Amino acid sequence: MTTTGQQIFSTLTEDGKLTVEVAETTFRDPTGAQVLVQMEAAPINPSDLALLTGASDLENAEYSDGKFVADMPEPFLSGQKGRFGQRLPVGNEGAGTVIAAGEHEMAQALIGQRVACVPGNAYSTHCIAEAAMCLPLGDHSSEQGASAFVNPMTALGFVETAKMEGQSAIIHAAAASNLGQMLLKICNEDGIDLVNIVRKQEQVDLLTGLGAKHVVNSSDDDFMDQLRGAIDATDAYFGFDPIGGGKTVDSCFKAMEQVAASKMTEFSRYGSDQPKKMYIYGRLDFGPTILTPSYGFGWTLSGWLLTPFLAKAGMETVMRMRQRVLANLTTTFASSYKRKVGLKEMLTKEAVLDYRAMHTGEKYLVVPKG
Amino acid sequence: MTTTGQQIFSTLTEDGKLTVEVAETTFRDPTGAQVLVQMEAAPINPSDLALLTGASDLENAEYSDGKFVADMPEPFLSGQKGRFGQRLPVGNEGAGTVIAAGEHEMAQALIGQRVACVPGNAYSTHCIAEAAMCLPLGDHSSEQGASAFVNPMTALGFVETAKMEGQSAIIHAAAASNLGQMLLKICNEDGIDLVNIVRKQEQVDLLTGLGAKHVVNSSDDDFMDQLRGAIDATDAYFGFDPIGGGKTVDSCFKAMEQVAASKMTEFSRYGSDQPKKMYIYGRLDFGPTILTPSYGFGWTLSGWLLTPFLAKAGMETVMRMRQRVLANLTTTFASSYKRKVGLKEMLTKEAVLDYRAMHTGEKYLVVPKG
Repeated sequence: MTTTGQQIFSTLTEDGKLTVEVAETTFRDPTGAQVLVQMEAAPINPSDLALLTGASDLENAEYSDGKFVADMPEPFLSGQKGRFGQRLPVGNEGAGTVIAAGEHEMAQALIGQRVACVPGNAYSTHCIAEAAMCLPLGDHSSEQGASAFVNPMTALGFVETAKMEGQSAIIHAAAASNLGQMLLKICNEDGIDLVNIVRKQEQVDLLTGLGAKHVVNSSDDDFMDQLRGAIDATDAYFGFDPIGGGKTVDSCFKAMEQVAASKMTEFSRYGSDQPKKMYIYGRLDFGPTILTPSYGFGWTLSGWLLTPFLAKAGMETVMRMRQRVLANLTTTFASSYKRKVGLKEMLTKEAVLDYRAMHTGEKYLVVPKG
Repeated sequence: MTTTGQQIFSTLTEDGKLTVEVAETTFRDPTGAQVLVQMEAAPINPSDLALLTGASDLENAEYSDGKFVADMPEPFLSGQKGRFGQRLPVGNEGAGTVIAAGEHEMAQALIGQRVACVPGNAYSTHCIAEAAMCLPLGDHSSEQGASAFVNPMTALGFVETAKMEGQSAIIHAAAASNLGQMLLKICNEDGIDLVNIVRKQEQVDLLTGLGAKHVVNSSDDDFMDQLRGAIDATDAYFGFDPIGGGKTVDSCFKAMEQVAASKMTEFSRYGSDQPKKMYIYGRLDFGPTILTPSYGFGWTLSGWLLTPFLAKAGMETVMRMRQRVLANLTTTFASSYKRKVGLKEMLTKEAVLDYRAMHTGEKYLVVPKG
C-alpha cells in the first residue's frame, strides 16, 4: 500500500538549470522502526537553502504555478556535479502526526502522536522518518516543534564543542539569528561567556534585552576596539561564524592575537603562543573567506557541521541534548516565524527572494496542506 | 669577563622605520649549562626574514655601510606593535666552535667542539647557546652544520605530524625548496606518499630526478587535473603550504573534495565526509589566504610552527629526530648555498633584495668574520 501526496523536488542539470517544483508523489508504507508522518509544519533554515536555491539567479528565474527554473552560476554549478540530474527532496526538519508505523515497537508506540522529525524531505505532505530520531511533542503544536532539531541541536552543539575543547567562552558572529538567541540563552544558563557580533544597533538592543553581556557591532567605527575589549574581558579565543565569506573570521583572529600579544612580556616574531580557533558553520556570504597574515601561526579554522558533530559526540550526549530541547521548547528553544506558506506559495518569486535573503528574525514556516 | 664582537640588530619604531645594522656588542660569560660559541656560519632562512626585513620597502630603503633603514607599510607595522623600539637580535640557527662554557658538565664537555646551535642571534660573531640544544658536529664543517636545525627538524616534523594524525600521504607546496627536497628524501625513506606542488618545469625535473613519484606543476593549464590525479593515487587529504597567501590551500581543498566526491555513491548537500586538512607554515606570499566556498565543511586549516610542535612532540621524539639529522647531515639533510656573505655585506641592497626574494635554491650563508 502507498500514500499519495505532494512534495518539493530540486533538480540541477549539467546545463546549469535549477528546477524546483511541487510534484505529486507516493510514499511507501513504513517498515521496521520507521514511521509515516503527515507533515504539518517545516521551517526554511539557511541549511535548507543549499539544495533549495543555492547561489542560483532567483531574480531572473522563470516562475510558474508551483515551480521555478533558475540559472546556477559558476563556480557553484561545477561544485555540485554530484547532483546533476538527480531529483532531490528538500527540507531537513519539521513536525507532524504519525499516521502509520513499521512493526518495531518503538515505531508502533508513536502512532497517533505529534512528533518533530528530521526526514530530509520535510517540504512534503508526508515523510518517512526513523522512530529513534523522532521527538514526541506531547502537548506542543507542530508549529512549536517544527524547529526542534537543527537550531537547538546546533546551538547546544557549539556549547558541547566548547566544553570538549576546554573553552569557557565563545565568540558568535551573526549572533542575533534565531540560533544566536538560543545560544545566548544556553550560555547564560551554563555560565559560558558569550561575545555576540551583530551588525545593527537594533540587534545590539535585542540581545542586550535578552541578557547578553557582550555585544559588539561590526558597523560601528570602533568595532575592533569593542571586539578586543570583549575578548579581553572573557578570554574568548574560540568562536563560530555562519557568514563564511569575507573577513569576519579574520577580524576575530586579529582581535584575539592583539589581546594576547598585549599581555606578553617579551616580543616574539611568531606572535603570541595563545591558540586561536574559529569554526565556520554556514555560508550566509558566498564570497571567499579572507585570512590576512596578521596573527602569526597559532590559529585553526575549521568547518563545523551538525551531523558529524553528533556522530562524534555519541548517543548519550545526543540524548541528553534532545531531552533539554524538549524540556525547554517554548522558552530557550522557541522559534518564531515571519510568515507561513504552503508548498506552492513557497516557490513564488516574492517568497523565494524574501527567505533567501535570510534576514534576521524573518524565518519562513512551510505548512504543507497539499 | 666579557667577549667583544659584532652582531646584527633589527629595530622597528612606531613611525614605521625599520633599522637593521651591524653593531659592536659584548657577550657575557656563559653560566650553568650555557656555552659561548664563536660563530662560523649561519643560513638566512625564510623564517629569519620576519624579523630581518619583514614586508619593509627594501627597494627604496637607505643603505649605508653595515646598515639599512626601510619603511614598514601597514598593516604589517601595526601587526608588530609588540616590538616597537626594541633592538632585536636576528638569526635562528648557525654553527661554530665552543670557546667557553658554564660550570655544568654538559656545557664543559662541549669546549673546543664544533656545534650546530639555535641561539636566535646567529648573525653575530658570538652567541650564547644552551648546551642541551647544541648538536656536536664531529668532523662536519660549520658550513655543513649551519642548517642542521630549522629545515631538517621542520621536514621531519611534517612527517611526525602526519604519523600522529594517522596520515600516510602528504601534499607539499613550493616543494622544490631546500626543505621540500629534504621532505622528499624523508618520505621516500619512510614510505610516505608525497604530492609535490611546484611552479616550474625545471623544478618538476629536479624533484623527479631526486626520486619524486608525484610532482604537479601549478603553471600548467591542467594543474587541477594533475593535482586530482595525484590525490586520487595517494589518498593525500593532508598537506603543508609555506606560501600562505593566495589560493594554494584553496586549490588543494578543492581537488581533495572533488576526488572524494567522485567516490561517493550518493549525493550529499554537505559534500563528502572525507576530512581534509592543510597547514600553513610560512608566508612566502604576504597576500591574504583565499578560501572559496567550494568544498563543504569537512576541512581544517591551521598554522604550523616548529617550536610548539617540538614542545608537543616531547623530548624523546625530538632526540630521535636530532640523531637522524646528525646521521644524515651530508645526505638527506644537506643544504646548499648560493652565496656567502659577511655581516656587513649581508645588509647591502644587492644582497638584501636577492635573499628576500627567496628564490628556490638560492639560500644565503652568513659567515660572520667580524
